[in-house]
Formats: sequence, structure tokens, C-alpha cells
Amino acid sequence: MSIKEGLHKKAEIIEAKLNTYLVTHENSYEEKLHESMLYSLLSGGKRIRPILLIEVGELFGAKQEDLIDFACAIEMIHTYSLIHDDLPAMDDDDLRRGKKTNHKVYGEAMAILAGDGLLNFSYELMIETSLKNDSYCYLKAMKEISKAAGHQGMVGGQVADCLSEGKIGTKDTLEYIQLKKTSALLTCALTAGGCIAGVSEMTLNDLRKLGTAVGFAFQIRDDILDIESDESVLGKPIGSDEKNHKLTYPSLFGLEASKAKVRELTDEANRILKSFDGDTSFLESLVNYLCNREY
Amino acid sequence: MSIKEGLHKKAEIIEAKLNTYLVTHENSYEEKLHESMLYSLLSGGKRIRPILLIEVGELFGAKQEDLIDFACAIEMIHTYSLIHDDLPAMDDDDLRRGKKTNHKVYGEAMAILAGDGLLNFSYELMIETSLKNDSYCYLKAMKEISKAAGHQGMVGGQVADCLSEGKIGTKDTLEYIQLKKTSALLTCALTAGGCIAGVSEMTLNDLRKLGTAVGFAFQIRDDILDIESDESVLGKPIGSDEKNHKLTYPSLFGLEASKAKVRELTDEANRILKSFDGDTSFLESLVNYLCNREY
Repeated sequence: MSIKEGLHKKAEIIEAKLNTYLVTHENSYEEKLHESMLYSLLSGGKRIRPILLIEVGELFGAKQEDLIDFACAIEMIHTYSLIHDDLPAMDDDDLRRGKKTNHKVYGEAMAILAGDGLLNFSYELMIETSLKNDSYCYLKAMKEISKAAGHQGMVGGQVADCLSEGKIGTKDTLEYIQLKKTSALLTCALTAGGCIAGVSEMTLNDLRKLGTAVGFAFQIRDDILDIESDESVLGKPIGSDEKNHKLTYPSLFGLEASKAKVRELTDEANRILKSFDGDTSFLESLVNYLCNREY
Repeated sequence: MSIKEGLHKKAEIIEAKLNTYLVTHENSYEEKLHESMLYSLLSGGKRIRPILLIEVGELFGAKQEDLIDFACAIEMIHTYSLIHDDLPAMDDDDLRRGKKTNHKVYGEAMAILAGDGLLNFSYELMIETSLKNDSYCYLKAMKEISKAAGHQGMVGGQVADCLSEGKIGTKDTLEYIQLKKTSALLTCALTAGGCIAGVSEMTLNDLRKLGTAVGFAFQIRDDILDIESDESVLGKPIGSDEKNHKLTYPSLFGLEASKAKVRELTDEANRILKSFDGDTSFLESLVNYLCNREY
């Protein structure tokens, strides 16, 4: 089976689970809110973060059934951040994954609330799961996720991204934004999976290094695709970074240096993966795929 | 000491604690985000929810130091909801507690992110506290809070409030909105305090009834003040409910019936409080004050 087929099969498992949440409603208001939340949650996406969480958790001995709620919770956090990033006050995007963005379908007020609802629901879900299981491991996993999502993680990265737009950027600012905005949530998928499986602090540190490398490579690849890809392949307009004067690795260092950096980071990620006991072949293929993907 | 003085002293304790969070920053971007988060978090407010959490927790035997982080976390959730509610896409308010609303000072993008940051930080704080203590009691408290804040609580209530604006409202819709938008977060302050103190399910149910009664009375009083008060006393424009065709108890049943309903709910709340062992005199005064306040 190719990595694309393998990923697709694993994404189907995540989507089947995502389809089980928010299906009952007290009244038509709640139904409308759920519709808006699920519109974005179920509109495709590669499900990379939940797949990483499950793969790492299983690598270190946890079972899929013990990992899947947290995997879905991370996907909800990812989705809420996309809904809010797309708002007119932020990136003002009309399309996401080839479909209208949330506020284009449901209006701005509902899009803000659907995002709030998804962020909060991800915690509801993690808290419920923690209460049913070994609280300590799950609380540690929740801590990893909450740090990555918040003011010192993804929210902080988005602030830096907004504030630096249109200004002359530096390598430091760029690396800060990429570390917080992209790497943080990818990394916590790895460490949360590790926490649930009960790995050591040393392994958690390796997982952090792995996440940082993959996150950087993933983001640079994203920025390369924004220059080199095609709207019909990518499902969103290309050239938007240049239009918005976004600070990116290609804008600072050019395309060739960006591609070399992706290769360097991919090698580092593979070195870390190979240092783990157990079968890391799928994770290695996944990392290589992520860093060389076409969409 | 009058109840106003007593409340003021307790609010000072909350504010001293709130002032200890978000004080260090990695760089100027994070500093700006923290500034925006703290602008709203520290701009006055009666600190009702955190005071209720601590009072109920102490009534049932918990110590203030074991309660105060969760008390502050609830205030953060309350504050984030105000920041998002005030946005142009929602209530479009320029003033809150006599000061400019967050987006009027920091712009819409930052206001959305400051709200997201506060919601997420409240969970970071609760998770940290849970990891340091008896996880189970704290996880139960977190569950109460997350249910109250989310799609079946405050977010759901705000959705119903937005969607019902300008439409002919019914008593059912009104009660749903008040239950979710106001009572839910007040109620979880009581039940979270109870959970941390380790109360029984029966007491939790009494606390839920108490919260619902106080929440309804509090909201109806709020709607009465929007008609009868003065902008200089209230710190925000009056008459905005009528202007926005908001569904309120006074708009459905008139001022006199609204005042009678507040009295009925206050009596019920006092009955429940008197049924608890221990000294509930401060909580009784607080409830009476909340339901008869002038601002």
C-alpha cells in the first residue's frame, strides 16, 4: 500500500470517529451551531495531527481506542484555528480546501462561535476521557496540548504572524512564527501520544525535536507550494503569501535554499525516528510524504 | 462590613491573583498579546463568579489556596466571552464597564486572538492545578466548567441569542438563552467549588438549582437595569436591548412582572442556601445583592 493510501485509510478512521460527535441537539439553535462546527471539522483535511498522535501512541504501546478521542480533540483545535484565521479581520480567506470558508457560509458571528465551540469541545472531550481513564497520563497529554494551542503556542504564533505582516521580517521572527504557529500543534500531537503511552521524559524530548523538525519542514513546504502549486491541486488560491506580504522562508531565502532546508529537516526527522525501538516505517514514510507533498 | 465592602475585599484577592498571570513574555509579540488579554481581564468587573466558587468551596471545607486558580480560570472564560460578544460581528459594543472594548483598543484580529488566548489559558491553568493536586476532584470541577462554557452552555446560549435577535421570541427561547448564556457559568462556579471540596452528588444538584435561580434573577436584573439605569452608573449605554430588539424578560412580560420574578427566584435561592450546613450568611447577602443591584 502506498503512503497516500495508508494515510487515507487512517484518515477514514479519524473521520468515522469525528462523525460521532455533536450529532444530537437540544433545539434548532444548537443544531445550527453543530452544523457550523461540523461543516469545518468534516470538510476534508489530511488529518495529519490525529494520525501522528495515534501512530506515536501505538509505537510506544498504547491502544488506538485509548488514543482516538485525544486525536480528534487535536483536530478540533486545528479546525477552530483555521476558522478564526480565515475571518475577515485576519486572513480574510473565502476558500479552504476547495470549499467556502466557515464565515462565508454561516456568517462571521457564527464562525467566531463555531471556533470557540470547537476549542472548548476539544477540552470537554479530553476531560471526559481523562475522567474515564488513568487521569495522570491523560492530564500530562492535555498539558502538552494546551501549552501548544495557547498564548505561548499557536495563538501566540498567529498574533506574531498578524503583527509582522507587511513589515520587513527577520529570520528570528520567521522561526518564532513557524515554531508557534505550525510546529507547536504538530509537536504536541507527538508528545500527547507519547504521554498517553507513558513514555519517559527523554523520549518526550526526542518527540519534541522530531515535531519541531517536521513542523518547520511542513511549513516551508506549504510556503513553497503557495508559490509553485496550482489552485486546482491545492484547493485554495496560490500566491496569497506574496499578495499579503507574508514573511516566509522562501521570501527570505529563496526557493532553492527553502528546498534544501526541507531536505535537511527531513533527514533530521528520520534520524530521530530511526533511534526509536519498534517499527517506525509508517512514520518515516509519513514524514517524507509531508515534507515533499504536492498539496 | 456592608456586602459591597465585603465583595470589594474579596474581589481584591481575585485581582491580586489575576495580576500574577501572563507577566513574562518571550518577545514583543507575546507582550502585545498579553497586554490585550490583561486589558480586558483587569478592567474591573465584580468578580462574581470567582467569588462564588471560593465561597462555596470554603463553605464545604476546601481552602482558598486550593480554589483560587480555578476561580481565576472561570473569570478568564467570562472575560473571553465578553471580548467575543462585543465584536462588530456580534453585539458591536464600543464600551464595557466604562472603558473601550478590546477590539476598539487593539483591533478585531487581536481581540479575537485575545479571547482565544484567554479561553485556552483558563484550561492551561486548570490542567496545571489538577496535575499538582488530587486530579479526580479537579477533573470533575473542570468537567463542570467545560460543559458550562461550551456548545451546550455559554457558546450555545450566545448562538441562540444571535439567531433570535429581531425575531418574535417565546418564553421557551428566552429561558433557554438565559439558562445557557448566564446561568451556566454562574452555576459551574458553584458546582466547581463544590467538586474541589469533594461534595456529594446530592449537594451538587442543590448547587445546580441554586445557580439556575441566581443566574435567572441576575440576568433579569441586568435587563431591568438596561431599561431603568443610567449610563454613568452602569458604565455602558442603556436601552441597547430595545435598540437591538433583544428578547428579554421585561420585553416579554413587562417591568413589574420581571421584578416579581426576581423576588421569587431570590427567595428560592435563599431557601436552598439555608438548607446547607455551615455559615451561609455571606452567600445569602451576596445573592440578595446580586438580584437587587443597581449596576
